[in-house]
Amino acid sequence: MSTLELRAEPLTRQAFAPFGDVIEVAEDNQVIPINYGSTERHHDLAALDVEDGGGRAIVSIFRTRPVSLPFRVKVMERHPLGSQAFIMTTGNPYLVVVAPPGEFEPAALRAFQAAPGQGVNYHKGVWHHYCLGLYAVNDFLVIDRAGAGDNCEEIAIPGKLQIYIVR
Amino acid sequence: MSTLELRAEPLTRQAFAPFGDVIEVAEDNQVIPINYGSTERHHDLAALDVEDGGGRAIVSIFRTRPVSLPFRVKVMERHPLGSQAFIMTTGNPYLVVVAPPGEFEPAALRAFQAAPGQGVNYHKGVWHHYCLGLYAVNDFLVIDRAGAGDNCEEIAIPGKLQIYIVR
Repeated sequence: MSTLELRAEPLTRQAFAPFGDVIEVAEDNQVIPINYGSTERHHDLAALDVEDGGGRAIVSIFRTRPVSLPFRVKVMERHPLGSQAFIMTTGNPYLVVVAPPGEFEPAALRAFQAAPGQGVNYHKGVWHHYCLGLYAVNDFLVIDRAGAGDNCEEIAIPGKLQIYIVR
Repeated sequence: MSTLELRAEPLTRQAFAPFGDVIEVAEDNQVIPINYGSTERHHDLAALDVEDGGGRAIVSIFRTRPVSLPFRVKVMERHPLGSQAFIMTTGNPYLVVVAPPGEFEPAALRAFQAAPGQGVNYHKGVWHHYCLGLYAVNDFLVIDRAGAGDNCEEIAIPGKLQIYIVR
Protein backbone atom coordinates (compact mmCIF):
# COMPACT_ATOMS: atom_id res chain seq x y z
CA MET A 1 0.00 0.00 0.00
CA SER A 2 1.41 3.40 -0.86
CA THR A 3 -0.01 6.88 -0.47
CA LEU A 4 0.48 9.91 -2.69
CA GLU A 5 -0.58 13.38 -1.57
CA LEU A 6 -1.26 15.94 -4.27
CA ARG A 7 -1.31 19.51 -3.08
CA ALA A 8 -3.56 21.74 -5.18
CA GLU A 9 -1.43 24.47 -6.78
CA PRO A 10 -2.83 27.78 -8.03
CA LEU A 11 -3.91 27.41 -11.67
CA THR A 12 -1.65 29.43 -13.95
CA ARG A 13 -1.13 29.24 -17.70
CA GLN A 14 2.52 28.49 -17.29
CA ALA A 15 1.97 25.57 -14.93
CA PHE A 16 -0.98 24.22 -16.95
CA ALA A 17 0.65 24.53 -20.40
CA PRO A 18 1.54 20.82 -20.71
CA PHE A 19 -2.11 19.91 -20.24
CA GLY A 20 -4.15 22.57 -22.03
CA ASP A 21 -5.38 26.15 -21.98
CA VAL A 22 -6.49 28.37 -19.12
CA ILE A 23 -9.48 30.44 -20.28
CA GLU A 24 -9.31 33.68 -18.33
CA VAL A 25 -9.16 37.46 -18.53
CA ALA A 26 -5.46 38.31 -18.56
CA GLU A 27 -3.20 41.12 -19.64
CA ASP A 28 -1.33 38.98 -22.12
CA ASN A 29 -4.47 38.03 -24.05
CA GLN A 30 -5.21 39.55 -27.42
CA VAL A 31 -7.66 42.22 -26.21
CA ILE A 32 -9.89 43.97 -28.74
CA PRO A 33 -12.06 46.93 -27.68
CA ILE A 34 -15.54 46.53 -29.20
CA ASN A 35 -19.13 47.66 -28.71
CA TYR A 36 -18.28 51.39 -28.70
CA GLY A 37 -15.83 50.95 -25.87
CA SER A 38 -18.15 49.10 -23.50
CA THR A 39 -16.57 45.67 -24.02
CA GLU A 40 -13.09 44.16 -24.07
CA ARG A 41 -12.94 41.07 -26.25
CA HIS A 42 -10.32 38.66 -24.87
CA HIS A 43 -9.91 36.80 -28.11
CA ASP A 44 -9.56 33.11 -28.95
CA LEU A 45 -8.47 31.66 -25.62
CA ALA A 46 -8.69 27.91 -26.22
CA ALA A 47 -7.38 25.55 -28.88
CA LEU A 48 -10.57 23.66 -29.69
CA ASP A 49 -9.57 20.42 -31.43
CA VAL A 50 -12.68 18.40 -32.20
CA GLU A 51 -12.62 17.58 -35.90
CA ASP A 52 -10.94 14.15 -35.84
CA GLY A 53 -13.17 11.51 -37.39
CA GLY A 54 -15.73 14.04 -38.58
CA GLY A 55 -16.30 15.48 -35.10
CA ARG A 56 -17.91 18.81 -34.32
CA ALA A 57 -17.95 21.16 -31.33
CA ILE A 58 -20.98 21.01 -29.08
CA VAL A 59 -22.05 23.02 -26.04
CA SER A 60 -23.41 21.32 -22.91
CA ILE A 61 -23.91 22.10 -19.23
CA PHE A 62 -22.54 19.74 -16.58
CA ARG A 63 -24.42 20.06 -13.28
CA THR A 64 -22.15 18.54 -10.64
CA ARG A 65 -22.19 17.59 -6.99
CA PRO A 66 -19.33 19.05 -4.97
CA VAL A 67 -16.41 17.21 -3.44
CA SER A 68 -14.47 18.05 -0.31
CA LEU A 69 -10.80 17.74 0.64
CA PRO A 70 -8.99 15.51 1.17
CA PHE A 71 -10.42 13.89 -1.98
CA ARG A 72 -9.36 10.42 -3.05
CA VAL A 73 -8.61 9.98 -6.76
CA LYS A 74 -9.85 6.61 -7.93
CA VAL A 75 -10.20 7.01 -11.67
CA MET A 76 -8.87 9.22 -14.47
CA GLU A 77 -10.07 9.67 -18.04
CA ARG A 78 -8.91 10.97 -21.40
CA HIS A 79 -10.49 11.79 -24.74
CA PRO A 80 -8.34 10.53 -27.61
CA LEU A 81 -10.42 12.26 -30.31
CA GLY A 82 -10.91 15.76 -28.99
CA SER A 83 -10.30 18.60 -26.57
CA GLN A 84 -12.76 19.32 -23.76
CA ALA A 85 -13.27 22.77 -22.20
CA PHE A 86 -14.90 23.53 -18.83
CA ILE A 87 -16.00 26.98 -17.75
CA MET A 88 -17.41 27.50 -14.24
CA THR A 89 -20.66 29.48 -14.37
CA THR A 90 -21.77 29.31 -10.74
CA GLY A 91 -19.05 31.33 -9.10
CA ASN A 92 -17.13 28.78 -7.05
CA PRO A 93 -13.51 27.69 -7.18
CA TYR A 94 -12.91 24.12 -8.32
CA LEU A 95 -10.17 21.54 -8.59
CA VAL A 96 -8.41 20.23 -11.67
CA VAL A 97 -6.36 17.02 -11.66
CA VAL A 98 -4.33 16.07 -14.71
CA ALA A 99 -1.54 13.87 -15.99
CA PRO A 100 0.34 14.08 -19.29
CA PRO A 101 -0.90 12.23 -22.38
CA GLY A 102 0.57 8.84 -23.17
CA GLU A 103 0.92 6.03 -20.68
CA PHE A 104 -0.69 7.01 -17.38
CA GLU A 105 1.87 7.68 -14.66
CA PRO A 106 0.51 8.29 -11.13
CA ALA A 107 3.77 10.02 -10.20
CA ALA A 108 3.11 12.62 -12.91
CA LEU A 109 -0.28 13.69 -11.52
CA ARG A 110 -0.77 17.42 -10.82
CA ALA A 111 -3.61 19.11 -8.96
CA PHE A 112 -4.66 22.74 -9.43
CA GLN A 113 -7.18 25.00 -7.73
CA ALA A 114 -9.02 27.11 -10.28
CA ALA A 115 -10.59 30.44 -9.39
CA PRO A 116 -14.25 31.00 -10.31
CA GLY A 117 -13.27 33.16 -13.30
CA GLN A 118 -10.96 30.56 -14.81
CA GLY A 119 -11.86 27.88 -17.33
CA VAL A 120 -9.72 25.03 -18.59
CA ASN A 121 -9.47 23.34 -21.97
CA TYR A 122 -7.93 19.88 -21.75
CA HIS A 123 -6.00 19.07 -24.88
CA LYS A 124 -6.73 15.86 -26.72
CA GLY A 125 -5.43 12.82 -24.85
CA VAL A 126 -4.58 14.60 -21.59
CA TRP A 127 -5.51 12.52 -18.55
CA HIS A 128 -7.90 14.37 -16.26
CA HIS A 129 -10.27 13.78 -13.41
CA TYR A 130 -13.96 14.45 -13.94
CA CYS A 131 -15.54 17.67 -12.57
CA LEU A 132 -14.43 18.54 -9.04
CA GLY A 133 -16.55 21.49 -7.97
CA LEU A 134 -16.43 22.77 -4.40
CA TYR A 135 -18.91 24.03 -1.79
CA ALA A 136 -22.20 23.67 -3.71
CA VAL A 137 -23.84 22.07 -6.69
CA ASN A 138 -22.06 23.77 -9.60
CA ASP A 139 -22.65 24.17 -13.30
CA PHE A 140 -19.88 24.04 -15.87
CA LEU A 141 -20.32 25.13 -19.47
CA VAL A 142 -18.61 22.43 -21.52
CA ILE A 143 -17.36 22.60 -25.10
CA ASP A 144 -16.34 19.23 -26.42
CA ARG A 145 -16.63 16.87 -29.38
CA ALA A 146 -19.59 15.02 -30.78
CA GLY A 147 -19.05 12.45 -33.50
CA ALA A 148 -18.37 8.83 -34.29
CA GLY A 149 -15.72 6.83 -32.47
CA ASP A 150 -14.89 5.90 -28.89
CA ASN A 151 -13.77 9.16 -27.32
CA CYS A 152 -13.54 8.26 -23.63
CA GLU A 153 -10.96 6.03 -21.97
CA GLU A 154 -10.85 5.52 -18.24
CA ILE A 155 -8.17 4.13 -16.01
CA ALA A 156 -8.74 2.94 -12.46
CA ILE A 157 -6.09 3.66 -9.86
CA PRO A 158 -5.03 0.32 -8.32
CA GLY A 159 -6.49 -0.18 -4.84
CA LYS A 160 -3.07 -0.47 -3.27
CA LEU A 161 -2.28 3.12 -4.30
CA GLN A 162 -4.07 5.81 -2.33
CA ILE A 163 -3.96 9.22 -4.01
CA TYR A 164 -5.40 12.17 -2.13
CA ILE A 165 -5.81 15.78 -3.20
CA VAL A 166 -5.06 17.95 -0.20
CA ARG A 167 -4.91 21.69 0.47
CA MET B 1 -40.05 61.83 -33.79
CA SER B 2 -41.51 58.56 -32.53
CA THR B 3 -40.85 56.52 -29.43
CA LEU B 4 -40.96 52.75 -29.00
CA GLU B 5 -40.87 51.14 -25.56
CA LEU B 6 -39.65 47.55 -25.36
CA ARG B 7 -40.55 45.77 -22.16
CA ALA B 8 -38.04 43.06 -21.22
CA GLU B 9 -39.85 39.70 -21.18
CA PRO B 10 -38.59 36.65 -19.28
CA LEU B 11 -36.26 34.62 -21.50
CA THR B 12 -37.85 31.28 -22.43
CA ARG B 13 -36.97 28.82 -25.17
CA GLN B 14 -40.38 29.12 -26.71
CA ALA B 15 -40.29 32.91 -26.94
CA PHE B 16 -36.66 32.94 -28.12
CA ALA B 17 -36.99 30.17 -30.72
CA PRO B 18 -37.17 32.53 -33.74
CA PHE B 19 -33.81 34.02 -32.75
CA GLY B 20 -31.70 31.19 -31.41
CA ASP B 21 -31.09 28.79 -28.54
CA VAL B 22 -31.39 29.26 -24.78
CA ILE B 23 -28.51 27.41 -23.10
CA GLU B 24 -29.82 26.34 -19.70
CA VAL B 25 -30.43 23.45 -17.34
CA ALA B 26 -33.96 22.29 -18.08
CA GLU B 27 -36.07 19.18 -17.69
CA ASP B 28 -36.63 18.80 -21.42
CA ASN B 29 -32.91 18.63 -22.20
CA GLN B 30 -31.25 15.38 -23.11
CA VAL B 31 -29.79 14.61 -19.66
CA ILE B 32 -27.09 11.96 -19.34
CA PRO B 33 -25.89 10.84 -15.89
CA ILE B 34 -22.08 10.60 -15.93
CA ASN B 35 -19.09 10.63 -13.59
CA TYR B 36 -20.42 7.82 -11.39
CA GLY B 37 -23.62 9.68 -10.69
CA SER B 38 -22.04 12.95 -9.57
CA THR B 39 -22.82 14.86 -12.78
CA GLU B 40 -25.81 15.43 -15.05
CA ARG B 41 -24.73 16.17 -18.60
CA HIS B 42 -27.30 18.48 -20.24
CA HIS B 43 -26.27 17.59 -23.74
CA ASP B 44 -25.77 19.64 -26.91
CA LEU B 45 -27.74 22.78 -26.10
CA ALA B 46 -26.78 25.14 -28.94
CA ALA B 47 -26.72 24.86 -32.71
CA LEU B 48 -23.21 26.14 -33.41
CA ASP B 49 -23.06 27.19 -37.05
CA VAL B 50 -19.64 28.57 -37.83
CA GLU B 51 -18.27 26.67 -40.81
CA ASP B 52 -19.36 28.95 -43.67
CA GLY B 53 -16.37 30.16 -45.66
CA GLY B 54 -13.96 27.88 -43.84
CA GLY B 55 -14.84 29.27 -40.41
CA ARG B 56 -14.10 27.58 -37.09
CA ALA B 57 -15.45 27.91 -33.55
CA ILE B 58 -13.42 29.97 -31.12
CA VAL B 59 -13.80 30.71 -27.41
CA SER B 60 -13.39 34.25 -26.04
CA ILE B 61 -14.34 36.23 -22.95
CA PHE B 62 -16.20 39.54 -23.30
CA ARG B 63 -15.67 41.79 -20.27
CA THR B 64 -18.47 44.34 -20.40
CA ARG B 65 -19.58 47.51 -18.63
CA PRO B 66 -23.16 47.38 -17.35
CA VAL B 67 -26.12 49.36 -18.63
CA SER B 68 -29.14 50.58 -16.72
CA LEU B 69 -32.81 50.91 -17.59
CA PRO B 70 -34.36 52.64 -19.38
CA PHE B 71 -31.71 51.89 -22.01
CA ARG B 72 -31.80 53.54 -25.43
CA VAL B 73 -31.15 51.25 -28.40
CA LYS B 74 -29.09 53.08 -30.99
CA VAL B 75 -27.50 50.32 -33.03
CA MET B 76 -28.09 46.64 -33.83
CA GLU B 77 -25.77 44.07 -35.41
CA ARG B 78 -25.85 40.70 -37.13
CA HIS B 79 -23.33 38.08 -38.20
CA PRO B 80 -24.13 36.76 -41.68
CA LEU B 81 -21.51 33.99 -41.53
CA GLY B 82 -22.01 32.41 -38.14
CA SER B 83 -23.84 31.88 -34.88
CA GLN B 84 -22.66 33.60 -31.69
CA ALA B 85 -23.23 32.23 -28.18
CA PHE B 86 -23.02 34.18 -24.91
CA ILE B 87 -22.87 32.54 -21.48
CA MET B 88 -22.88 34.74 -18.36
CA THR B 89 -20.11 33.69 -15.97
CA THR B 90 -20.34 36.41 -13.32
CA GLY B 91 -23.73 35.66 -11.88
CA ASN B 92 -25.85 38.62 -12.93
CA PRO B 93 -29.00 38.80 -15.02
CA TYR B 94 -28.64 40.54 -18.37
CA LEU B 95 -30.70 41.84 -21.26
CA VAL B 96 -31.05 40.46 -24.76
CA VAL B 97 -32.50 42.51 -27.62
CA VAL B 98 -33.17 40.84 -30.96
CA ALA B 99 -35.00 41.18 -34.26
CA PRO B 100 -35.59 38.54 -36.93
CA PRO B 101 -33.08 37.99 -39.74
CA GLY B 102 -33.68 39.71 -43.04
CA GLU B 103 -34.48 43.38 -43.45
CA PHE B 104 -34.31 45.12 -40.08
CA GLU B 105 -37.72 46.09 -38.75
CA PRO B 106 -37.80 48.23 -35.59
CA ALA B 107 -41.38 47.12 -34.95
CA ALA B 108 -40.19 43.50 -34.74
CA LEU B 109 -37.70 44.14 -31.91
CA ARG B 110 -38.03 41.99 -28.78
CA ALA B 111 -36.30 42.42 -25.43
CA PHE B 112 -35.68 39.62 -22.92
CA GLN B 113 -34.27 39.48 -19.42
CA ALA B 114 -31.97 36.49 -19.01
CA ALA B 115 -31.32 34.90 -15.63
CA PRO B 116 -27.69 34.39 -14.57
CA GLY B 117 -27.84 30.68 -15.40
CA GLN B 118 -29.08 31.22 -18.95
CA GLY B 119 -26.97 31.59 -22.06
CA VAL B 120 -28.10 32.50 -25.56
CA ASN B 121 -26.90 31.41 -28.98
CA TYR B 122 -27.91 33.87 -31.71
CA HIS B 123 -28.47 32.06 -34.95
CA LYS B 124 -26.69 33.26 -38.07
CA GLY B 125 -28.11 36.53 -39.35
CA VAL B 126 -30.31 37.31 -36.33
CA TRP B 127 -30.22 41.01 -35.44
CA HIS B 128 -29.08 41.56 -31.85
CA HIS B 129 -27.81 44.25 -29.58
CA TYR B 130 -24.31 43.92 -28.18
CA CYS B 131 -23.80 42.74 -24.55
CA LEU B 132 -26.18 44.32 -22.08
CA GLY B 133 -25.03 43.22 -18.64
CA LEU B 134 -26.57 44.68 -15.49
CA TYR B 135 -25.37 45.86 -12.08
CA ALA B 136 -21.61 45.31 -12.41
CA VAL B 137 -18.81 44.69 -14.85
CA ASN B 138 -19.67 41.24 -16.22
CA ASP B 139 -17.88 38.54 -18.16
CA PHE B 140 -19.53 36.50 -20.88
CA LEU B 141 -18.00 33.35 -22.33
CA VAL B 142 -18.47 33.70 -26.08
CA ILE B 143 -18.39 30.97 -28.73
CA ASP B 144 -18.40 32.39 -32.24
CA ARG B 145 -16.76 32.14 -35.64
CA ALA B 146 -13.25 32.98 -36.75
CA GLY B 147 -12.44 32.93 -40.44
CA ALA B 148 -12.25 34.92 -43.63
CA GLY B 149 -15.06 37.25 -44.72
CA ASP B 150 -16.95 40.21 -43.31
CA ASN B 151 -19.01 38.72 -40.49
CA CYS B 152 -20.39 41.84 -38.80
CA GLU B 153 -23.04 44.20 -40.12
CA GLU B 154 -24.38 47.08 -38.07
CA ILE B 155 -27.45 49.19 -38.51
CA ALA B 156 -28.00 52.54 -36.80
CA ILE B 157 -31.46 53.41 -35.55
CA PRO B 158 -32.50 56.71 -37.19
CA GLY B 159 -32.30 59.63 -34.75
CA LYS B 160 -35.98 60.39 -35.13
CA LEU B 161 -36.86 56.99 -33.66
CA GLN B 162 -36.28 56.62 -29.93
CA ILE B 163 -36.28 53.00 -28.76
CA TYR B 164 -36.04 52.32 -25.04
CA ILE B 165 -35.81 49.03 -23.17
CA VAL B 166 -37.87 49.38 -20.02
CA ARG B 167 -38.79 47.10 -17.13
